[in-house]
Amino acid sequence: MTIKLIGFPYSGPTMRVIITLRELGLPYEFETPANFEVLKTEDFLANKNPFGKIPVLFDGDFRIIESRSICRYLASKYQGKNNNTILIPNDVHKAGLVDQFVSFEIFYYDPPAFKFVSQEVFAEKFWNKNPDPEIIKQGREELIKVLDIYEKLLEGKEYLNGEFSLADIYHSPYTHYVYGVAKHSELWDSRPNVKNWWNRLRNREAVKKTLEEIP
Amino acid sequence: MTIKLIGFPYSGPTMRVIITLRELGLPYEFETPANFEVLKTEDFLANKNPFGKIPVLFDGDFRIIESRSICRYLASKYQGKNNNTILIPNDVHKAGLVDQFVSFEIFYYDPPAFKFVSQEVFAEKFWNKNPDPEIIKQGREELIKVLDIYEKLLEGKEYLNGEFSLADIYHSPYTHYVYGVAKHSELWDSRPNVKNWWNRLRNREAVKKTLEEIP
Ligand SMILES: N[C@@H](CCC(=O)N[C@@H](CS)C(=O)NCC(=O)O)C(=O)O
Ligand SMILES: N[C@@H](CCC(=O)N[C@@H](CS)C(=O)NCC(=O)O)C(=O)O
Repeated sequence: MTIKLIGFPYSGPTMRVIITLRELGLPYEFETPANFEVLKTEDFLANKNPFGKIPVLFDGDFRIIESRSICRYLASKYQGKNNNTILIPNDVHKAGLVDQFVSFEIFYYDPPAFKFVSQEVFAEKFWNKNPDPEIIKQGREELIKVLDIYEKLLEGKEYLNGEFSLADIYHSPYTHYVYGVAKHSELWDSRPNVKNWWNRLRNREAVKKTLEEIP
Repeated sequence: MTIKLIGFPYSGPTMRVIITLRELGLPYEFETPANFEVLKTEDFLANKNPFGKIPVLFDGDFRIIESRSICRYLASKYQGKNNNTILIPNDVHKAGLVDQFVSFEIFYYDPPAFKFVSQEVFAEKFWNKNPDPEIIKQGREELIKVLDIYEKLLEGKEYLNGEFSLADIYHSPYTHYVYGVAKHSELWDSRPNVKNWWNRLRNREAVKKTLEEIP
């Protein structure tokens, strides 16, 4: 069965899926829409994604959208098949705590990180706008609080939940943008556990390759 | 093993967990903190939730936070034990699509619904503020777009994913607040599929009982 992913290589949600595919050792075809307008065409809304967004994944005839749901589906169906990488633990308690870190990412980590990304990575490049220093300031204040909590939670651990999991993958794209592209590495590097976590994560082959390929 | 839930009965995230517990037929103890300040005490941050929020669930010694992660954990561990209610299908494709609706709730349904809830339900009651008509207007515009998409996705279905699931539960608390408390029932009632869905959902015993108990 062919796996086909539709997305943009610089999109954080798309990168989440690419990293997951690579971690699981799954071959896939990659299709990039010609531009953003394509996502709002009748055909795209009817047959790809009613919300007019990427990524979209086809696994044979089966279609699924929303980056985190795509990744969870791929892990549930394919983990352990092509290699030994386990992204969702079998143990119900461990899986619950992975999902808890997924929720931290969605509600506490992604929103302030996106403030940096939107202003310092995307604003000029895609929207022809100047960065708004007020939004960047808010993002920094919020992210500092979250990283202080992560510093404690990561004590004695290699990855967020101890073993590598989906939750680490979800954090990667925007961490890369804020750390490496918007050049706020000091936020991570000044916290030893957070620093070691990110170094471990970005040096995984699947993560590294995906981040290097950003146009 | 005793299940203990810490939360406020009028909190949407807390209601999500209570509905899930009831749907699964699980007995539990309920503890309500004396006030919001308790959530920011050293003890609470260290032993309950480092982000200073409710709900928090203890299943014996096992602690888990984040409403949606708590519900998923409960379903994964206990569904099918005390009754026949299945909230996460066994089939990996069906489970993937339930998770897709969970993502719709998080990213597209909850944010505009919360604009109504924050302004028309919580602003005066908890924050001593007047509702901001601009935020309500935005919430309405965004929610209309989402409900139009839901109207199509619900065609021929009893629940979001066909069979009742976690995704329906997650939508219940804020739908109740916007529909019944903030009195915007016309947004649902003018869309037949959405209307029937919500009527089916709010008349389920677990949902009904939980919504009736809001102080
Ligand atoms: N919650 C979605 C968000 C996807 C998303 O925001 N995609 C952006 C590109 S990064 C998009 O397609 N934007 C087009 C639009 O919203 O018009 C996911 O995680 O997949
Ligand atoms: N993402 C969390 C949100 C929980 C949440 O926002 N809880 C609110 C009450 S509804 C809270 O504890 N607020 C206290 C605060 O943030 O200071 C979840 O779904 O459990």
